Amino acid sequence: MSEILDLAGIFVFALSGALMGVRKRLDVVGMGVLAGMTALGGGVVRDLILNVRPIAFQSLGYVLVPVVATVIVFFWHPHVARVMPAILVLDAAGLGLFCAVGTEKALEYGLNPLHAALLGVVTAVGGGMLRDVLAGEIPTLLYDRQLYAVPAMLGSACMAGLYAGLGLHGWPATLAAAVLAFVLRIAAMRRNWRAPLARGLSE
Amino acid sequence: MSEILDLAGIFVFALSGALMGVRKRLDVVGMGVLAGMTALGGGVVRDLILNVRPIAFQSLGYVLVPVVATVIVFFWHPHVARVMPAILVLDAAGLGLFCAVGTEKALEYGLNPLHAALLGVVTAVGGGMLRDVLAGEIPTLLYDRQLYAVPAMLGSACMAGLYAGLGLHGWPATLAAAVLAFVLRIAAMRRNWRAPLARGLSE
Amino acid sequence: MSEILDLAGIFVFALSGALMGVRKRLDVVGMGVLAGMTALGGGVVRDLILNVRPIAFQSLGYVLVPVVATVIVFFWHPHVARVMPAILVLDAAGLGLFCAVGTEKALEYGLNPLHAALLGVVTAVGGGMLRDVLAGEIPTLLYDRQLYAVPAMLGSACMAGLYAGLGLHGWPATLAAAVLAFVLRIAAMRRNWRAPLARGLSE
Repeated sequence: MSEILDLAGIFVFALSGALMGVRKRLDVVGMGVLAGMTALGGGVVRDLILNVRPIAFQSLGYVLVPVVATVIVFFWHPHVARVMPAILVLDAAGLGLFCAVGTEKALEYGLNPLHAALLGVVTAVGGGMLRDVLAGEIPTLLYDRQLYAVPAMLGSACMAGLYAGLGLHGWPATLAAAVLAFVLRIAAMRRNWRAPLARGLSE
Repeated sequence: MSEILDLAGIFVFALSGALMGVRKRLDVVGMGVLAGMTALGGGVVRDLILNVRPIAFQSLGYVLVPVVATVIVFFWHPHVARVMPAILVLDAAGLGLFCAVGTEKALEYGLNPLHAALLGVVTAVGGGMLRDVLAGEIPTLLYDRQLYAVPAMLGSACMAGLYAGLGLHGWPATLAAAVLAFVLRIAAMRRNWRAPLARGLSE
Repeated sequence: MSEILDLAGIFVFALSGALMGVRKRLDVVGMGVLAGMTALGGGVVRDLILNVRPIAFQSLGYVLVPVVATVIVFFWHPHVARVMPAILVLDAAGLGLFCAVGTEKALEYGLNPLHAALLGVVTAVGGGMLRDVLAGEIPTLLYDRQLYAVPAMLGSACMAGLYAGLGLHGWPATLAAAVLAFVLRIAAMRRNWRAPLARGLSE
């Protein structure tokens, strides 16, 4: 169950990576690289920091799903681009899931709650940052003032609190943390909440 | 024998990194950083993912060869640039060698063939991608439609097939896979084979 | 004692990262990411290469200090920018400290002196390079011809020599190496020493 959810998140992230490849007129290799980086980059960095072999290099699904996403975007990108508003909702779901799963894995490997939550955020946003850097852009996360990292932080903190504070393990806790981050992310999009600039900078 | 081949590949990759430093008017430190990144980056990423200490930090030759390449380019870069067509052939040899060696090492550490082949490709193209990102450019690999990653993929797949399918180990298998990738890369350059853009994008 | 010095270096590096965020008009998330990357990136890369869990994910101070630096820059960036000349001196102290501490840790984990010194330089300059790449710029280190990496190299070499050559361990050796790098860095700034371009390139 948890692996299926994980693969669903990877699929959505891979679609967004491959679509950025189309927008920047990359070739099929570039599309595949961006798809794989977006989908797997955050988890690979998390596992390197936990000092374990990355899950992406142990399970076949993690490699096949980005390949499938690349093929779909290669042939049907106008249709995929047309349903991007729906994909943004799925992306929010992926964000919530990745921050919860990442935090939980870090706690299981013995990190304290603060570090585990930080690593959950890295899991959720790391792939997108790598995608942007490879595509020659400053990561959107750093400047566009949408609340994208903040919902992940709160979801990760929720997961860490449930796990370390209340002793709640397993999928109910994961789901609660993922839903919290998802709802906050959707609300931030709907209501156009914005991250502040440093004090005194004009809007 | 295998280490000498490896160091030869590192030397060629380091030359290309240092030359990019000259073209972008970097100083000698920048030339050295690009030389080292190009030559060693792919192997370091491979070893981090395999969760072993990178070979580049265990063997003196891996550090000295990029230093020598940087010194050569520093003093004689016009001559080195003039022989770049020959260097492109050597680069193709390095590409073939790195994908074969990388795949083999991954198989020896217990990865399954698909993941091992993927890691072989990372070994072969990772250093060049890091070089381009550090030099402020989108990695050539992603957009220029030359077949560079694809020969590495086929060489890595060949290595994985020989090793896992036929039980062939050691240098004859490595050499066969390396030669396959090399020949395909040279053919792609000669015949100007091109990677496709997403369907419907004008050429 | 050594952890307090380490945290002082992290604080200064985090200030410089957050200030770059202000200059590039990033939002508060971007400021925090650059602060954390600059302060912790070099040490994380060092620990990944040593194949140990990064210290930044084991000690609370390493996470809290960049957060505090980000808050300070968020509210009082004009004052912080005004004292940047003083911060450049502190940055030189951080550079010296990080190269000495990084080299020493690498020696303790069994690297030979050459690789340990290289890893000390990575510790000292890696965070700043990651900061520049994330901010969409070529790392300053590669082109600006200030001697920044070279003092770190000499400090790391000094540390490796004292440790492996003379058997000197502990804080006196660390301090000597750190002071050497610091003094060289300050001298390079004061006297405007410059790294050379490749031979034949006009200044």
